[in-house]
Amino acid sequence: MIVKVKEPLSAEYPYLRPDLVVFTYLHLASSIELAEALMRSGVTALAYETVQRADGSLPLLAPMSEVAGKLATQVGAHCLEAQSGGRGVLMGGVPGVPPAEVVVLGCGSVGTNAAKVAVGMGASVTMLDINHDRLKYLDDMMSGRVVTVYSNSRNIERAVRYADLLIGAVLVRAARAPSLVTKAMVEKMKPGAVIVDVAIDQGGCVETIRATSHSEPTYVEYGVVHYAVPNMPALTPRTSTLALTNATLPYVEALANQGLDAALAADPALAWGLNTRGGEIVHPVVKAAFA
Amino acid sequence: MIVKVKEPLSAEYPYLRPDLVVFTYLHLASSIELAEALMRSGVTALAYETVQRADGSLPLLAPMSEVAGKLATQVGAHCLEAQSGGRGVLMGGVPGVPPAEVVVLGCGSVGTNAAKVAVGMGASVTMLDINHDRLKYLDDMMSGRVVTVYSNSRNIERAVRYADLLIGAVLVRAARAPSLVTKAMVEKMKPGAVIVDVAIDQGGCVETIRATSHSEPTYVEYGVVHYAVPNMPALTPRTSTLALTNATLPYVEALANQGLDAALAADPALAWGLNTRGGEIVHPVVKAAFA
Amino acid sequence: MIVKVKEPLSAEYPYLRPDLVVFTYLHLASSIELAEALMRSGVTALAYETVQRADGSLPLLAPMSEVAGKLATQVGAHCLEAQSGGRGVLMGGVPGVPPAEVVVLGCGSVGTNAAKVAVGMGASVTMLDINHDRLKYLDDMMSGRVVTVYSNSRNIERAVRYADLLIGAVLVRAARAPSLVTKAMVEKMKPGAVIVDVAIDQGGCVETIRATSHSEPTYVEYGVVHYAVPNMPALTPRTSTLALTNATLPYVEALANQGLDAALAADPALAWGLNTRGGEIVHPVVKAAFA
Amino acid sequence: MIVKVKEPLSAEYPYLRPDLVVFTYLHLASSIELAEALMRSGVTALAYETVQRADGSLPLLAPMSEVAGKLATQVGAHCLEAQSGGRGVLMGGVPGVPPAEVVVLGCGSVGTNAAKVAVGMGASVTMLDINHDRLKYLDDMMSGRVVTVYSNSRNIERAVRYADLLIGAVLVRAARAPSLVTKAMVEKMKPGAVIVDVAIDQGGCVETIRATSHSEPTYVEYGVVHYAVPNMPALTPRTSTLALTNATLPYVEALANQGLDAALAADPALAWGLNTRGGEIVHPVVKAAFA
Amino acid sequence: MIVKVKEPLSAEYPYLRPDLVVFTYLHLASSIELAEALMRSGVTALAYETVQRADGSLPLLAPMSEVAGKLATQVGAHCLEAQSGGRGVLMGGVPGVPPAEVVVLGCGSVGTNAAKVAVGMGASVTMLDINHDRLKYLDDMMSGRVVTVYSNSRNIERAVRYADLLIGAVLVRAARAPSLVTKAMVEKMKPGAVIVDVAIDQGGCVETIRATSHSEPTYVEYGVVHYAVPNMPALTPRTSTLALTNATLPYVEALANQGLDAALAADPALAWGLNTRGGEIVHPVVKAAFA
Amino acid sequence: MIVKVKEPLSAEYPYLRPDLVVFTYLHLASSIELAEALMRSGVTALAYETVQRADGSLPLLAPMSEVAGKLATQVGAHCLEAQSGGRGVLMGGVPGVPPAEVVVLGCGSVGTNAAKVAVGMGASVTMLDINHDRLKYLDDMMSGRVVTVYSNSRNIERAVRYADLLIGAVLVRAARAPSLVTKAMVEKMKPGAVIVDVAIDQGGCVETIRATSHSEPTYVEYGVVHYAVPNMPALTPRTSTLALTNATLPYVEALANQGLDAALAADPALAWGLNTRGGEIVHPVVKAAFA
Repeated sequence: MIVKVKEPLSAEYPYLRPDLVVFTYLHLASSIELAEALMRSGVTALAYETVQRADGSLPLLAPMSEVAGKLATQVGAHCLEAQSGGRGVLMGGVPGVPPAEVVVLGCGSVGTNAAKVAVGMGASVTMLDINHDRLKYLDDMMSGRVVTVYSNSRNIERAVRYADLLIGAVLVRAARAPSLVTKAMVEKMKPGAVIVDVAIDQGGCVETIRATSHSEPTYVEYGVVHYAVPNMPALTPRTSTLALTNATLPYVEALANQGLDAALAADPALAWGLNTRGGEIVHPVVKAAFA
Repeated sequence: MIVKVKEPLSAEYPYLRPDLVVFTYLHLASSIELAEALMRSGVTALAYETVQRADGSLPLLAPMSEVAGKLATQVGAHCLEAQSGGRGVLMGGVPGVPPAEVVVLGCGSVGTNAAKVAVGMGASVTMLDINHDRLKYLDDMMSGRVVTVYSNSRNIERAVRYADLLIGAVLVRAARAPSLVTKAMVEKMKPGAVIVDVAIDQGGCVETIRATSHSEPTYVEYGVVHYAVPNMPALTPRTSTLALTNATLPYVEALANQGLDAALAADPALAWGLNTRGGEIVHPVVKAAFA
Repeated sequence: MIVKVKEPLSAEYPYLRPDLVVFTYLHLASSIELAEALMRSGVTALAYETVQRADGSLPLLAPMSEVAGKLATQVGAHCLEAQSGGRGVLMGGVPGVPPAEVVVLGCGSVGTNAAKVAVGMGASVTMLDINHDRLKYLDDMMSGRVVTVYSNSRNIERAVRYADLLIGAVLVRAARAPSLVTKAMVEKMKPGAVIVDVAIDQGGCVETIRATSHSEPTYVEYGVVHYAVPNMPALTPRTSTLALTNATLPYVEALANQGLDAALAADPALAWGLNTRGGEIVHPVVKAAFA
Repeated sequence: MIVKVKEPLSAEYPYLRPDLVVFTYLHLASSIELAEALMRSGVTALAYETVQRADGSLPLLAPMSEVAGKLATQVGAHCLEAQSGGRGVLMGGVPGVPPAEVVVLGCGSVGTNAAKVAVGMGASVTMLDINHDRLKYLDDMMSGRVVTVYSNSRNIERAVRYADLLIGAVLVRAARAPSLVTKAMVEKMKPGAVIVDVAIDQGGCVETIRATSHSEPTYVEYGVVHYAVPNMPALTPRTSTLALTNATLPYVEALANQGLDAALAADPALAWGLNTRGGEIVHPVVKAAFA
Repeated sequence: MIVKVKEPLSAEYPYLRPDLVVFTYLHLASSIELAEALMRSGVTALAYETVQRADGSLPLLAPMSEVAGKLATQVGAHCLEAQSGGRGVLMGGVPGVPPAEVVVLGCGSVGTNAAKVAVGMGASVTMLDINHDRLKYLDDMMSGRVVTVYSNSRNIERAVRYADLLIGAVLVRAARAPSLVTKAMVEKMKPGAVIVDVAIDQGGCVETIRATSHSEPTYVEYGVVHYAVPNMPALTPRTSTLALTNATLPYVEALANQGLDAALAADPALAWGLNTRGGEIVHPVVKAAFA
Repeated sequence: MIVKVKEPLSAEYPYLRPDLVVFTYLHLASSIELAEALMRSGVTALAYETVQRADGSLPLLAPMSEVAGKLATQVGAHCLEAQSGGRGVLMGGVPGVPPAEVVVLGCGSVGTNAAKVAVGMGASVTMLDINHDRLKYLDDMMSGRVVTVYSNSRNIERAVRYADLLIGAVLVRAARAPSLVTKAMVEKMKPGAVIVDVAIDQGGCVETIRATSHSEPTYVEYGVVHYAVPNMPALTPRTSTLALTNATLPYVEALANQGLDAALAADPALAWGLNTRGGEIVHPVVKAAFA
């Protein structure tokens, strides 16, 4: 059994073989090449991001979502600095000068954590989602510090226009993220505004976004700073490693102690993690993404 | 000695005489008629609103300012209801629907209390003032729940335009309030927006405002609901009476126990309360208002 | 298909016919006349208020409950003003003068939102319910700003007696609200106290309550101001319409796209919305109410 | 120079002599015997509790007031336990069961700290004082978590009657504390209620109070548990010593480096600390207390 | 039917008989003697602590857990006083002097309530648990006032070492609590540190703990004050009785109105309460504890 | 009159002349060269940073201190990222993983704003100062979210050792900042820890610090990342310019309308701003710095 953090690199493909169990982040839906390599090799691949409990929660995505969400705002604040090409707006403003406007698309774990940090830094924060229960919980929990808005294209367009910092945090399970922010909307953003798209692992939820890297994290298009580094938690490895280990340890122990089949049988959540086995994609949603 | 709450009415003028001490709210600067009556009678008139301590604070205006400030928002919320002619916007919104925008001009006691209630009801609140120390204190005390903006005509214009509820809370000691919101600004307000002008006792700080009454509290001009009842604390007599009595009692006791001259000599704050004596206006700022 | 907000008026009864689908608020349990009209016509009537998810939550009642709850306190504060016949108590008091005592019966969506606004306005708030989990969640969420009390007749009696403002927020699904506050309790309330009964759509939870209207919203009985306008969200149509549209849109789309039968089959929550069809009351609880 | 914490004990009187400087807590106003011993010996005695800055603040009483205030509530909570003879009420209650009622007399440093802990433990807290500015600051700072009430005998009587825990925190500079709570009020308290009188060093502000000791900290009178240990900070010596040392160090350094006369001349605050010198009481207020 | 609070005492064993229903706290897992007495007598015994709802929650343990959790911190603060043998550290410190370090093992109802009071008293609080969802909820609800740490032996060891007050709040349903804090860890605690083990009813979660009593509540071992009174809620009988009655009343009514068999059949939660019947232990977990 | 933001550059020295008034930031104490140029030229130079009101506050330093303080934490969070050479710790941690430890030296405007952002981002924050009143105010205002510690070398040493992020915010009026953190202390910091020294304009308060630039903002020494860009507010020019203009405008208007001498005579605060005139350094503290 191999326990990793990131998906296998092309250089590692030759080492994959049918009697091996790989337990790591895979994000197959955004990489045909990797999916084919896994199938060709016959390896048994369990993806952290599709381990899923009965209530729909994703226990091995959660800790990285929390880290990425908090980092999204921290990184966005940095991008807003003049030296990064941003508008030169301070997140919290100062007495007499208004704070930055932060708009968060998606109220899941990423969005909630991004919003918490933005509120904590003193920004004006708007959150959009279509899940009323989630909007309600945030309204309770944030006690009036965020404005929650029902997400539809009209409301998104309006919010994007006044945003200093736009955080894309819309994740759809095991599928490509929807492109909620169109090129036309980006063109109307304020000059020097910033987009941080945390959904980049699934293709991003902004039409003008493309993946960047830790060495060149941003590019400017339509006067807007774009940030979309796929592996944000790598910025804080000490915190991320602890968080991930806390979460995976029980599953790794189950696999090691009980063996693959028994572990999958005993725990439906872990069973949902199975992506490829015996040369086939076996997870229904992942499979559908390649249909 | 006569201790009252409101200024003497015209019907009461004949009873004023040189050997009488009247201790009440006077607001002479906004009523030439009353000022002349006081001077003619030779009465000794002490005004609650000009009793002033060394640090500039106004101990007998403070409790009524607190009451009026809190009521301003409560009354404003009521005026925003459709049945009152307002925009039909709920102060706090609900999850998925944004809250009302409340703009408070002036960060003294009235403005602070108005803002506290607006924040408590869930509104988005902007406060404007030119006093940086006050903006800073509010920033500390409200922990990020209000946006503080330095007050100048450009910032006022912008804020008035997006306000659902505008609260005028600019008081200048013993003088007419400045007309910070012009007719042109009111014309650009949203239809059904509401103005509550707490400064009406001093003439108001909005160009289109004129005093209204508890029986007909509002009128609509330029599509905007105007509220400017001079004696707002009368809406909550139980609270107001307790608050005022708490504050005046020590002064009344001093006047009763020590006599007028001794009491004035012993307490400079009370001495500032003296408005007319022996047929003259003796308070310098009030005097200047009639020059 | 007809999508409305309020139930069909008598004048509209003639237009109801078997091949029509009406999707609106119905509240059949409190109107025999309407129930009979619907049955006679053979119309298919889906009631917003009985659309119900597997966890018992009512997604189309929730937004109006949130609006009504927040309005209940706003309206109650207005009724407490002396000009409305109330005790003349300011919700939040001022430093040195205690705040109003607000008692909220029922900790569902209405009660929680009413309490949030009351707390925000600075009142002392007591909430009563029999659901321990709900009391616990409120205790967590309100961090010590409300006193939660287990609801039984002894505790209700005690709380009603010290209340300046009593908010009735006890809703029972598709049934008449229980009369928890007796006439004897109302007689012992403080003079000028205020009752706002949000459960009036289901008959009210106070024995002395009867429905009032937006034009004459209150009456005084036993020295207590009673407010019970059935359609409170109409006070803030802008907020209410947005909130309701956010919530109904997905169901309307399903009905329009899939047709009635398919939509009901696909979504058990929507199926619970069915009240009458083919001349019969088909919702079991509504039916029981007429047995 | 001798730097101590508590006043000299009778056994130490023989060691006092004219060329000695004693810098410690003295509380002369409550001990004729000590005052006479100091005068007889001709010692120079500086009292921590009368070191006073131009704004009236007492920098060396402040840290112990903070400690004593926080301990007052902690000790009171313990006294409320059934095993201590108290009512058996939990400070914060639990969801469904109301919290304890805590009444704090005096809003200075002791009272504020007592109230903070009481609020933190979840109690319902009422604070009384005659200083409006102080009530206002607490209202701002506690954001609605305490009810502030103007202090007069009627309000004290009412509050004492409903108190589960009454904390006496009324200190008057260098004088005996006033007896604000009469025996008649104590008789009407609930059985098992608790009084903690932090003003005991100055004689206490409750008529039925008398000093107790760490070994026998409470007695019951009129069914009410009384606690009045003069030296409460001794309960937490680690915290108290650090707090006191932080505060006294600058003065001790000044005395050691500059000598007595130069230090007194250079710092009026320290000069106020001088209580006896050359056989005379030299502090005017202390002197008046013995007149 | 006999409804009690505590388990039957040895003196009461003779009165147990087959046709009797006893409904009370039993905690059989920690008392072989009682279990045998119940079996011998043939009594039907329902244990409050094993009544369990479908979601795993324990409705009759919850109120006592809430009381015990809040008391754990209150008692711990008292034990930290020098007169109790503790370190003499004030929970909240004072400005300039750091607060006490409180470590809470277990984030269930006991731990959460203990942490709330500790935070309220101003302590630095660390909470440990293995349940990520619970850590996340606390992180939301406590808004940054506690540090949450994933529980494993390394993290426990580190936290125990810096704790001034350690609260053991690890409960395992109907089984013996695990000994998470070893003797070796206790030996490394600071001198005068305090352990309060609320899990003592189930044997405690600290290796050096043994049950104490209300009359002699603490003992010192390895320089550490140990407190482990099994029935902490007895300290506040007024609050505890109300809380327990609120919770048990619905079940008692069901048993009285419907009879034992019908009540058990109608409510699976109550059925889980059945511990012994007809001479047998019938609750599977309790049975396993004796295997 | 020339109104600038930064001090005159060497290239600008030739343009200085006796009849010119320069109103800008000067920070003479840290630049002999500039001081000599000003004296040589005979220019009248008013420094923003020494304009000082009677209460000692610095109205033109305040807005930049607020901006710099908030940026200090934002920049520090960025430096803590692995890509910046930092420890890779996330400010707020995530549930189950502790947050970063932030230590702030100095509780003035810079320190307070730095701490607010750090608290908002979820860090554990320790603040050190010798001003008890300030520690007390922060304790009130931050309601338990920061630990305040009396500043002395022992406490500084201990705090520096556990800091992930150390923020130097110790400013002394018109003088060089004291070197409170010695090289020995820096050597004992954790590898990858970060120092942000906001006092760099006055030489810095850390022994190992030296000024850096926006293009190369950090260097690593003893394994610790050092950041000390003198003009931090340039990172957010939009916010900084608004903030500074709000503050300087009244003084600029006074100088323009009344002329230099009249303006200085009328406003003692502005008079303190005078640094050089007629070839002499006239500000006493600045003069002393060159003695």
